[in-house]
Amino acid sequence: MGGFGRKAYEFLSELGLGPRNPGCFVIAEVMEASIEDYEEGLRACANAAKIWMQIPAPKRGEIVRQIGEALRTKLYYLGRLVSLEMGKILPEGIGEVQEIIDMCDYAVGLSRQLNGSIIPSERPNHMMLEVWNPLGIVGVITAFNFPCAVLGWNACIALVCGNCVVWKGAPTTPLITIAMTEIVAQVLEKNNLPAAIFTSFCGGAEIGEAIARDTRIPLVSFTGSSKVGLLVQQNVHKRFGKCLLELSGNNAIIVMDDADIQLAVRSVLFAAVGTAGQRCTTCRRLLLHESVYQTVVDQLIQVYKQVNIGDPLEKGTLLGPLHTPISKENFVKGIEVIKAQGGKILVGGSVIDSEGNFVQPTIVEIAPSAQVVKEELFGPVLYVMKFQTLNEAIEINNSVPQGLSSSIFTRKPEIIFKWIGPHGSDCGIVNVNIPTNGAEIGGAFGGEKATGGGREAGSDSWKQYMRRST
Amino acid sequence: MGGFGRKAYEFLSELGLGPRNPGCFVIAEVMEASIEDYEEGLRACANAAKIWMQIPAPKRGEIVRQIGEALRTKLYYLGRLVSLEMGKILPEGIGEVQEIIDMCDYAVGLSRQLNGSIIPSERPNHMMLEVWNPLGIVGVITAFNFPCAVLGWNACIALVCGNCVVWKGAPTTPLITIAMTEIVAQVLEKNNLPAAIFTSFCGGAEIGEAIARDTRIPLVSFTGSSKVGLLVQQNVHKRFGKCLLELSGNNAIIVMDDADIQLAVRSVLFAAVGTAGQRCTTCRRLLLHESVYQTVVDQLIQVYKQVNIGDPLEKGTLLGPLHTPISKENFVKGIEVIKAQGGKILVGGSVIDSEGNFVQPTIVEIAPSAQVVKEELFGPVLYVMKFQTLNEAIEINNSVPQGLSSSIFTRKPEIIFKWIGPHGSDCGIVNVNIPTNGAEIGGAFGGEKATGGGREAGSDSWKQYMRRST
Amino acid sequence: MGGFGRKAYEFLSELGLGPRNPGCFVIAEVMEASIEDYEEGLRACANAAKIWMQIPAPKRGEIVRQIGEALRTKLYYLGRLVSLEMGKILPEGIGEVQEIIDMCDYAVGLSRQLNGSIIPSERPNHMMLEVWNPLGIVGVITAFNFPCAVLGWNACIALVCGNCVVWKGAPTTPLITIAMTEIVAQVLEKNNLPAAIFTSFCGGAEIGEAIARDTRIPLVSFTGSSKVGLLVQQNVHKRFGKCLLELSGNNAIIVMDDADIQLAVRSVLFAAVGTAGQRCTTCRRLLLHESVYQTVVDQLIQVYKQVNIGDPLEKGTLLGPLHTPISKENFVKGIEVIKAQGGKILVGGSVIDSEGNFVQPTIVEIAPSAQVVKEELFGPVLYVMKFQTLNEAIEINNSVPQGLSSSIFTRKPEIIFKWIGPHGSDCGIVNVNIPTNGAEIGGAFGGEKATGGGREAGSDSWKQYMRRST
Amino acid sequence: MGGFGRKAYEFLSELGLGPRNPGCFVIAEVMEASIEDYEEGLRACANAAKIWMQIPAPKRGEIVRQIGEALRTKLYYLGRLVSLEMGKILPEGIGEVQEIIDMCDYAVGLSRQLNGSIIPSERPNHMMLEVWNPLGIVGVITAFNFPCAVLGWNACIALVCGNCVVWKGAPTTPLITIAMTEIVAQVLEKNNLPAAIFTSFCGGAEIGEAIARDTRIPLVSFTGSSKVGLLVQQNVHKRFGKCLLELSGNNAIIVMDDADIQLAVRSVLFAAVGTAGQRCTTCRRLLLHESVYQTVVDQLIQVYKQVNIGDPLEKGTLLGPLHTPISKENFVKGIEVIKAQGGKILVGGSVIDSEGNFVQPTIVEIAPSAQVVKEELFGPVLYVMKFQTLNEAIEINNSVPQGLSSSIFTRKPEIIFKWIGPHGSDCGIVNVNIPTNGAEIGGAFGGEKATGGGREAGSDSWKQYMRRST
Repeated sequence: MGGFGRKAYEFLSELGLGPRNPGCFVIAEVMEASIEDYEEGLRACANAAKIWMQIPAPKRGEIVRQIGEALRTKLYYLGRLVSLEMGKILPEGIGEVQEIIDMCDYAVGLSRQLNGSIIPSERPNHMMLEVWNPLGIVGVITAFNFPCAVLGWNACIALVCGNCVVWKGAPTTPLITIAMTEIVAQVLEKNNLPAAIFTSFCGGAEIGEAIARDTRIPLVSFTGSSKVGLLVQQNVHKRFGKCLLELSGNNAIIVMDDADIQLAVRSVLFAAVGTAGQRCTTCRRLLLHESVYQTVVDQLIQVYKQVNIGDPLEKGTLLGPLHTPISKENFVKGIEVIKAQGGKILVGGSVIDSEGNFVQPTIVEIAPSAQVVKEELFGPVLYVMKFQTLNEAIEINNSVPQGLSSSIFTRKPEIIFKWIGPHGSDCGIVNVNIPTNGAEIGGAFGGEKATGGGREAGSDSWKQYMRRST
Repeated sequence: MGGFGRKAYEFLSELGLGPRNPGCFVIAEVMEASIEDYEEGLRACANAAKIWMQIPAPKRGEIVRQIGEALRTKLYYLGRLVSLEMGKILPEGIGEVQEIIDMCDYAVGLSRQLNGSIIPSERPNHMMLEVWNPLGIVGVITAFNFPCAVLGWNACIALVCGNCVVWKGAPTTPLITIAMTEIVAQVLEKNNLPAAIFTSFCGGAEIGEAIARDTRIPLVSFTGSSKVGLLVQQNVHKRFGKCLLELSGNNAIIVMDDADIQLAVRSVLFAAVGTAGQRCTTCRRLLLHESVYQTVVDQLIQVYKQVNIGDPLEKGTLLGPLHTPISKENFVKGIEVIKAQGGKILVGGSVIDSEGNFVQPTIVEIAPSAQVVKEELFGPVLYVMKFQTLNEAIEINNSVPQGLSSSIFTRKPEIIFKWIGPHGSDCGIVNVNIPTNGAEIGGAFGGEKATGGGREAGSDSWKQYMRRST
Repeated sequence: MGGFGRKAYEFLSELGLGPRNPGCFVIAEVMEASIEDYEEGLRACANAAKIWMQIPAPKRGEIVRQIGEALRTKLYYLGRLVSLEMGKILPEGIGEVQEIIDMCDYAVGLSRQLNGSIIPSERPNHMMLEVWNPLGIVGVITAFNFPCAVLGWNACIALVCGNCVVWKGAPTTPLITIAMTEIVAQVLEKNNLPAAIFTSFCGGAEIGEAIARDTRIPLVSFTGSSKVGLLVQQNVHKRFGKCLLELSGNNAIIVMDDADIQLAVRSVLFAAVGTAGQRCTTCRRLLLHESVYQTVVDQLIQVYKQVNIGDPLEKGTLLGPLHTPISKENFVKGIEVIKAQGGKILVGGSVIDSEGNFVQPTIVEIAPSAQVVKEELFGPVLYVMKFQTLNEAIEINNSVPQGLSSSIFTRKPEIIFKWIGPHGSDCGIVNVNIPTNGAEIGGAFGGEKATGGGREAGSDSWKQYMRRST
Repeated sequence: MGGFGRKAYEFLSELGLGPRNPGCFVIAEVMEASIEDYEEGLRACANAAKIWMQIPAPKRGEIVRQIGEALRTKLYYLGRLVSLEMGKILPEGIGEVQEIIDMCDYAVGLSRQLNGSIIPSERPNHMMLEVWNPLGIVGVITAFNFPCAVLGWNACIALVCGNCVVWKGAPTTPLITIAMTEIVAQVLEKNNLPAAIFTSFCGGAEIGEAIARDTRIPLVSFTGSSKVGLLVQQNVHKRFGKCLLELSGNNAIIVMDDADIQLAVRSVLFAAVGTAGQRCTTCRRLLLHESVYQTVVDQLIQVYKQVNIGDPLEKGTLLGPLHTPISKENFVKGIEVIKAQGGKILVGGSVIDSEGNFVQPTIVEIAPSAQVVKEELFGPVLYVMKFQTLNEAIEINNSVPQGLSSSIFTRKPEIIFKWIGPHGSDCGIVNVNIPTNGAEIGGAFGGEKATGGGREAGSDSWKQYMRRST
C-alpha cells in the first residue's frame, strides 16, 4: 500500500488475517510461494479438476452463488482492505468488491446457459452437435490496480464453466489474495469440495512464468503491461495453450464542439484522476475541438486545483497515493520526459512531500505526435490536445498502439454512428457521453491491438473458458 | 387489376400463362378452386410432407436456392405481372419479386442455422437438448397488395424449416398465384420431389376457412384485415393450431422541430402515396410539431399537386390506380366520413374520371380524436395533426388500435432513445429518419396490438415455423 | 387442503399469516377479492408499471435477487404451507419453493442478458436495431397443483423484463398466495418501490375473466385445463392481447424391449403417483413393448401395493390426499367411465375410507383407442397398453389431443434420434430414460397442441414477456 | 502435381489460364511474386479496404453470391484443375470446389446476420451496444492439400464481414490460385469494385512472412504444419495482430466391441486413404477393442489390397499420387522410422515404381507409445493399436499433441455421451459412427492443442473476422 504506517487494523481479523500469513509485508507479513509450493498446489488443483468438471453446471453455479453471499457479508471489510493495501479511495475499494459479487450473481444465471448448439446436418438422419466442455484449469494472473475485480471477471466464469482456478495476485497486494482465497475455500469446504478448486499463490515473476509454461493449464488470463503480456503469450503459445490478455490502455476522450461541457469536464476529472490514474481505463488523452479548447482546459484546471488529496480511507478524499514508491519514481521520470518532448505543464506536475506516495494531479499540453503520448504512464497525468475535425480526432484516437477504451462527447447522431462504426474508434470499448472507465459486467470487457484482444466478463466471453467439440 | 382493358400481354406466355388458366378473370380467365379441389390438394400435400421433412435442411436450402435462381431469370416478367394485376407501378412490382429472391438467398444460409441448443442439466451425466422439428404443413393466406413478397417471407422460411406450404393468394391476383406456383413446381420436379410440397389455391373465403379449420395445418400465417384475422385466429385456436397474423396498420410519421424538413417531406410523400396507399406500412398519419406544421403542410401540398398519376407500367408514373372498383368506392365513402367528422381536405379528395380506379392523392387536416383516424382507409389519404411536445406526439402515435410501423424525424439522440424505449412507440417497427415503409428482410417484420403480434422474415422468426422439443 | 382438521399451525405466523386473512378457509379464513378490489388493485399496479419499467434491468435483477434471498430464509415454512394447503408431500412442497428460488437466481443473470440485436442494414450508413421493451403488466393465473412454482416461472422473468405482475392464485390455495405476496411486498418496500409492482388476488373465475378482458394487461399467462384455457385465450385475443397457455397434459412413457426395466419401473412409479397424479407432467399412459409387458406390469403392481399413503407432512409418505372432495368425486366417476369403456383395474381403483380425500394408486389395462384415454383424469390413475413396434408406440403417444411431455426408455441411439426427430414425439418435452415429470428451469417448459403452445422458464422464453421494436 | 507429364490441357483456357501466367511450373509456367509485387498489391488492397467496408453487408453478400454463381458455372473445370495440380482424385477435386460454392451461399445469408447486441445497462437511460466492425484486411495462407476449400472458408466469411482478402496459395498449386483470383476479379469488376478487394500472390515463405509481419493485416489465417504455424503466430503476435491457425491433425478412430464392423471398416478406408492421406482430417490412428481387433485388421488388409491406384482424373481411381517427389521421400523416410521404432507393416509400406509419386496404402501395427505415432506423417499410413477399455482408448486418443478430429464407432448412448463430454475426446471435432474427415460448413471447423485452436466456416466463426466495439 501507499506507505501508511501501521494503524489499528483490527478489522483484518474479520477476514481471517493474522499478524503472520503464509506470504506478506508492510501491513502484515506474508511468505511468498516457492516453486515447490507451486508444484504441490498445482498437483492438488489438477486432482480437484477431475471432480469439479463432473459436477453439473447448475450445481457449480450454486457454489458460486454461495461465494457471492459470503463476499456480500464481508463487503465492507474487504473494501477497506482493498483501499488500505492498494491505496485507492474507500468507495472504489468497496465498488471493486461489489463487482465480484455482481459477477457471482451473473455467473449463477450463466451456469444454466452454457449452451451448445444442434446444427442441421446435410447428411440424412444425422445431427451436428456443438458441445462446450471445460478446459480443466484456468490460470489467472492479476495486477495490483484491480486486485479483486479482475479476478472476479475471470474466476466466476471459469468456475461455472467447470474449470479450477489457479490465481497469482500481485506481489504487492498479498493480503487481498489471502483473504479472498480464505473466503472461497470456506464455501468449497462447506460443500465437501476440495479447496484446491480455487488455488492461489502470493508470488512474483517466477510463479507467473511457471503458470505460463505449465501444460496442465490450457488457458492463462493475464492482466498487466503489454511488455510482460507479450512474454506470457509467447510462453503459453509455445506449449499450444491459449491466452486471454488485458494489457495497457491509452484511452482518449474526445470533446466535440456541441458537447455538454459541464458533463464532459466532470467525466474527464473522474476518468483521469480516479484510482490515482492507475486504471487500465484511465483517461490519459483529452482531445478537444478547437472551439471549446480553452473553455474546457480552464474549467479542468480549476477543478484539478480543488481535488482533495489524502488518506484513501477518509471520507471526501478523491485522490489517494500511488501504489508504491516505484510508482512515484516513475511519475517523476515521466514528467521529465514530457518536458523534454515539449510538453507544457498546465497544472500539477510535482510529487507531494509526505509520508505516502502522493503526487499532484497533472494536466499537460502536448502535441499528439510526441512519443511519450504513445506510452502508458501509470499515474494521474492527462495530455490535452486540440483538433479541428472529427476525422482528425478519430485519427489521433487511433494513433496509439493500445486499443482499450475511448469516449466521445457530442449530441449529434451522425457523429455517434461514425464513432462506433468501421471508420470510428478502433478500441474495444467505445463510449458516448460517458467517460472511458466504468465498464459493466453484462458487456464484454477488453481491447484491441496492444491491449491484447481478450474479452472478459459478459456477453459470450465464457466461450473462451471452454473448448468446443463439434 | 385496376381496370385496364386487354392490351398485348404476350409476356405472359413467358411465365407459362395461357389464355385459360385453372382459376382467373379480367386479364385471363381463372377457375377458382372448389372444396373438393382443396381436399385433393391437401391430401397430396400431407403425403409430400412426410418426404420433405426427412430431407436434410441444407438440402432443402439447395432447393430454395434453385427457386430463387428460377425467379431471378423471370424477374422482369413477374414484376410486370404484379404491376399489371395488382396495379402498383412497375418498379414496385419488380421490387416485390426481388424481395422473394432475397428471401430465397437468406433462407439458404438459414438452412444450416436452424440451431437447437444443448443446455447444461442439473442432473449428473445428463444433457438437456432443445431440438427444432418441422411442423408439417404451413398455411399461408396472403392479400392482394403484396401478392408475392408476403408469400416469400413465409414460404422460404417454412420450406427450409421442413414444412410444406399451402398457399391461398388473393382472389383478385390469381395469375401471380399461378405463375409463382408453376415456377416452384418446375424446380421441385427437376429435383424429383413432389410438386405438392408447394400447393396453392386460387379462391376466396371458403378456401381460407377450410385452411383455418384444417387440423393437418398446425400453423396458419394470415395477412389481411384485423377483422378477418380475428376470425381466422378463432378458428385456428379452436383446433389448437397456431397463428401468425399480419393485420392492419395505421402508421404515423412524427416530424420534430429539429427535423430535416426536406428529407421528411420526401419520405412522407413516398410512404403515403406509394402503392396508392395500399401498403400495410403506408403512412396514414402525419404528426407535425407546431413550429414546423405550416412549412411541412405547404411543401407537401405542392409535391402532391405534382404527383404523376397514370398507367403503372409507364415510366415516370408515381401513382397507379386502386386495386378494384370496390377500393374506389371505399375511398369515396371514406372521404364522406372524414368530412362528417370535421376533417378538412387540404388537397385531393376526389376520384379521377377515367377507365381505371384512379383517385387523387389526398391530405386531410383532422383532430387526432376523430374516430375515422383510428381506422385503416386503404388508399392514398394522409391525416395531418399538430402537436406541442414529444410526449404528446408519442401518445397520439400510440392512441390507435393498430401497432405496425411508426417513424420519427429528428436529430437529437435523447429523442431517438426515448422513441425506441419503453415509453416510446408501441409499434413493432420503430423507425428514425426513414419512412414507415421499407422493412428489410434481415429484421423481423410485424406489429403489435391489432396488427396481430406475428413476426415474419428475418431474425428468429423461423422459430415460429417449427416446434421445439426439449 | 385435503381435509385435515386444524392442527398446530404455529409456523404460519412465521409467514405473516394470522387467523384471519384478507381472502381463506379450511386452515384459515380468507376473504376473496371483489371486482371493486380488482379495479383498485389494477389501478395501483398500472401506476407502479410506469416506475418499474424505467428502472435499469440489472437493478430490477437485484430486486429479484433479494426476493430469492427472502424466500430462501423461509424455505422450510413455505414448503410446509404448500404441503398443508395443496396436499402434496413435504419434499415436493419444499421442492416447489426451491424452484422459485432457483428461478430468482436465474432471472438475476438474465437481467443483464435481455439482449436486442443490431442487424446489418442494406442501406448505407444505416443500422437495424431490434430492441426489447417491457409490456407493462403481465397477468398470471395459476392452478392449485403448483401454487408456487408456476408463479415463479412467470413472475421472475416478467419482473426482470420490466413488467409488473398481476397474480390470481387458485381459490383453494389462498394462504400460499398471501404468504408469497407478503414476502415480495416486503422486499419491494425495503427498496422504496411500490408493493403494487406485484399485485395478487385471491379469487375465482370472476377475477380470472376480469384479467382476461383487461386491455391494460397485454399478456396473460394461464395454467389450467384446456377448456378454461381456450376461453381465456378467446377473451384475450378479442382485445388483441397475447396469451401464454400451459394446459392439460396426457403424458406417456414408452418402454422399449431393450430398456433398463428397474429404472423404468421406478420412474413410472414416481411419475404416476407423485403429487397424487395431479401434476401436468404426471405420467398417465404407459406404453409397453409386448416382450416386456408382463414383467413391467407385474413389478409395477408390486410396488404400487407398497406405496405409503398418508399425512403428506409425515416422513416416508409417498402418496398424500387429492386436493379437494371434488377431486375425489372426479376420481370415482373416472373409474366408472374406465370400466364402462372396457378398462380392467389391475390394482387400486377405490377411494380410501378416511377423513381426507385419499384414493388408491391405480393401474388400468385398456385399449389405446378408448375415449377416456384421450382425456386428463387428474389423479393417480395409470393406463397401460401394449405395442409391437416403435412406430406404433409413437403413433399412440401422439394420438391424444394434448402434447406436453413424453418419455422413452431405451438404450439404442437410433431409437433416441427417431424419438426426438421430426417423426418422433409431438410433445414439447421429449425425455429419454427419465420420467415425464421433472423439467429444469434452464430449458423452455411447455407443450404443443391442446397443451397450448406456450413456453415458460428458461431458454428464450423471456422474449414472450417483452415486445420487440425493430 | 504428382508428376504427370503434359497432356492435353485445353480446358485450362476455360479458366482463363494461358501457357504463361504471372507466377508457375510443371503444367504451365508461373512467375512467383516478389516483395515489390507484394508491397504494390497490398497498397492497392489497403485502398480497396476503405471502399469495401463502407458497403452495406447485405450488398457485400450479393457480391459473394455472384462469386458463387461464377464458380458454379466453372465447377467441372475447376475441379479438374484441382485434381490435376494437387493430385487428388476428380470427385474430391470437384467436391472441394463445391465446398467454396456452398460457403458462398452460406455467407450470403450470414451477410444479414452479423448481429451485434443491445445489452441492458445498469445506468438509467443508457444502453450498451456491442457492434461488430470489419478488421480491414484478412491474410489467408493456405496449404497444397486443400487449395480451394480452405480459401473458401476464410474468404467468403471475411468478405461479407467487410474485409479485403490477401491470399497466398501454396507454391505448388499456382494455377488454382490464378484461376480463382481471375474469377473473383471478374465479379468485382462487373460490379465496379476494385479487384484488389481480393488480392492474391503465388509465392513461398518470403511472401508468407511478409504477411505475418504486416501491421496492415490485423488477422492472419494460416493452414499448414504446427511448426510453421508457431512461427507465423509469433510474428503476428509481436505486432499485436491476431491469428487463426489450422495446423496438424493426428486423428484417431476408435472401434468399440459393439460397433457396426462393416461400417467402421469402410469409414476407416476412406478416412485413411482418401486424398492419399494428405488431409488434415485423415485418419492416422485406428484404436481397436481387443475383441474386434483381428476381425477389423483382417478386413482392412483385404480392402487395402483392392484399392485402385492410378491417374486421379480416371474414373474408378481411389488413390492418386502424393503431391510432390518430396512427399514421396518423406513417406520412404517415415516407413524407416516406423520400422526402427518397432512398427510392423501389415500391408503396403513401399513406393510404387512409376512416373508419378505413387505409394502403397499402408497399415502398421505399432504401440501407442512409439514416438512416431505422435507425429503427422502426410501420406496413406495407418497405425493400428489394441485397447481393452473405453478409458484406455480415450487416453490414447488424447495422448498426441494434436487435437483436430476423432471418431468413435459404437451403438451405446452412454459411451457416446462420455465420448463427447468433459472426460472424452479432447479434439475440436468429435464424431460418432462417421469417419474423422468430412466436416460440414454449418459447424465450426478446427482443433485444439497443437492444431492451433482456430475455428473456421460455420457457427459463430465469423466473429473472429471482425472486431467488437462495446
